[in-house]
Amino acid sequence: MKKSPLEILDVYRERVNSRLEYYLASICSDGSYQSELKGVMSYSVLAGGKRFRPILTYTVADMYGVDISKVDSSACAIELIHIYSLIHDDLPAMDDDDMRHNQPSCHKKFGEAQAILAGDGLQVLAFEVISSDELISHSIRVDLLKLLAVSAYNMADGQSIDLSVVSKEVDIALLNQIHQKKTASLINCAVKFGALLNPNISSKDLDILDSYSNHIGLAYQVQDDVLDITSTEEVLGKRQNSDLNKAKPTYPTLLGVDESIKVYKNLYKEALEVITSLSIKNHPLRELTEKLMGRSF
Amino acid sequence: MKKSPLEILDVYRERVNSRLEYYLASICSDGSYQSELKGVMSYSVLAGGKRFRPILTYTVADMYGVDISKVDSSACAIELIHIYSLIHDDLPAMDDDDMRHNQPSCHKKFGEAQAILAGDGLQVLAFEVISSDELISHSIRVDLLKLLAVSAYNMADGQSIDLSVVSKEVDIALLNQIHQKKTASLINCAVKFGALLNPNISSKDLDILDSYSNHIGLAYQVQDDVLDITSTEEVLGKRQNSDLNKAKPTYPTLLGVDESIKVYKNLYKEALEVITSLSIKNHPLRELTEKLMGRSF
Repeated sequence: MKKSPLEILDVYRERVNSRLEYYLASICSDGSYQSELKGVMSYSVLAGGKRFRPILTYTVADMYGVDISKVDSSACAIELIHIYSLIHDDLPAMDDDDMRHNQPSCHKKFGEAQAILAGDGLQVLAFEVISSDELISHSIRVDLLKLLAVSAYNMADGQSIDLSVVSKEVDIALLNQIHQKKTASLINCAVKFGALLNPNISSKDLDILDSYSNHIGLAYQVQDDVLDITSTEEVLGKRQNSDLNKAKPTYPTLLGVDESIKVYKNLYKEALEVITSLSIKNHPLRELTEKLMGRSF
Repeated sequence: MKKSPLEILDVYRERVNSRLEYYLASICSDGSYQSELKGVMSYSVLAGGKRFRPILTYTVADMYGVDISKVDSSACAIELIHIYSLIHDDLPAMDDDDMRHNQPSCHKKFGEAQAILAGDGLQVLAFEVISSDELISHSIRVDLLKLLAVSAYNMADGQSIDLSVVSKEVDIALLNQIHQKKTASLINCAVKFGALLNPNISSKDLDILDSYSNHIGLAYQVQDDVLDITSTEEVLGKRQNSDLNKAKPTYPTLLGVDESIKVYKNLYKEALEVITSLSIKNHPLRELTEKLMGRSF
């Protein structure tokens, strides 16, 4: 019996969780003294989360007929980069957040030094996971690693801009640029990973997916900023109004909540329009996008 | 006229400096707002330094007949990882050092947030530089990236252990384990990079170079800890006695200065003995090792 889209998302979520556990367990611990680092990394990696980025990778890869065993390393690498960025962003020197996924953030639990190192370790583990995946050809591995590196750099660059403009005048154009780098670049990477795993992917489809992911990347961040105001702490798993309290510029602070909701819904709709031109049947991605548009956390 | 070894080291040092500048300049800065990150990274990258790790890579690659243009990305990637580790290690939450290469350390100059992000950006830039190098075959690029990832992870793991054992009982065995991970793993990577760039490298030579680099990696760290006591701040470019002041366990604190000097000299000598079994003429590496053994900073 064919699984419904909702069930498929659960399958992907469970799969990425178990593969993340596997990759963490595979880290070689030679020497007599057991370091704390693996435990610190595991605390943040296995804390849960929507696993939205790896689900995107699995969904797109499946649309292009890629065997799921070849997708695991890419899906996990994306999530590892995402988790490293959350750990570093939560640090006192950055956004200073003490809760994440309904548990103390990494530095609250283990101290700043181990949290910085856990982020460093997770970033590099992402590159190890892909470069060591013998199921994928060398040339595809290189393409994936190149895109991962550029996307992760842009993410750090976006955070750098975001921190340097706090409480200065920010307009929508600059906010878009920050969101594009800080949020959309990794989502873009997650989507394109799914396509790049098929050696026969056309540049036309890659361009379409590029446009699609930049749309949903921006939509996702605007929606996050709206939910930061309209949702509850329990549902979010972190402090509410955290942006407002830091006087961070966001879509809702610039345009108001109602207008911001219109903006992100329009972006999702444009993204849905864009993928109608793909060379393959797009319904799994359409259904996932519609689900995202209606998310409450 | 054939250049003497000393001149060759200067050539390599100048080459890695100019290539590092080139890679930094190549970072794409799209968007209207210029982020601070590239400037923060450049401050630390271009501050100087012995460039000892990339010089090792160039030296070994030349011994195996690899064209120098193919070595640049590997040599720079190693140095980028090294510089990122210095920036993060200098942070207040870690070793809390305010001087590096005779200038304020990165966080002193730009604040902790930008320093953390600069480290993150440099680490990922290392992977971008190698994965994008079209002069190297896909399969060699994958081998280099795999080794770089494992080595950089071990380095972070070593720092994690180092921080967790401060002012506890540490013996020589644990100290060796920390040095092996924190210092020798990246030196090991630098040496093997030079060999892996030759597609015909034998596993026997790789094993020999593995042993050689683990010897000089440990020697280099013990020597550093001795110089931290016997040298001057001006020569070191950083605060003297910084380990002593932090009650960090080191070879000199455990064995005394004189005994520690014997240890590192013996390690260098063993390393020199090891490379006599290489399938190629080893004199450039021998001369470099002898130079290292006599260094004063």
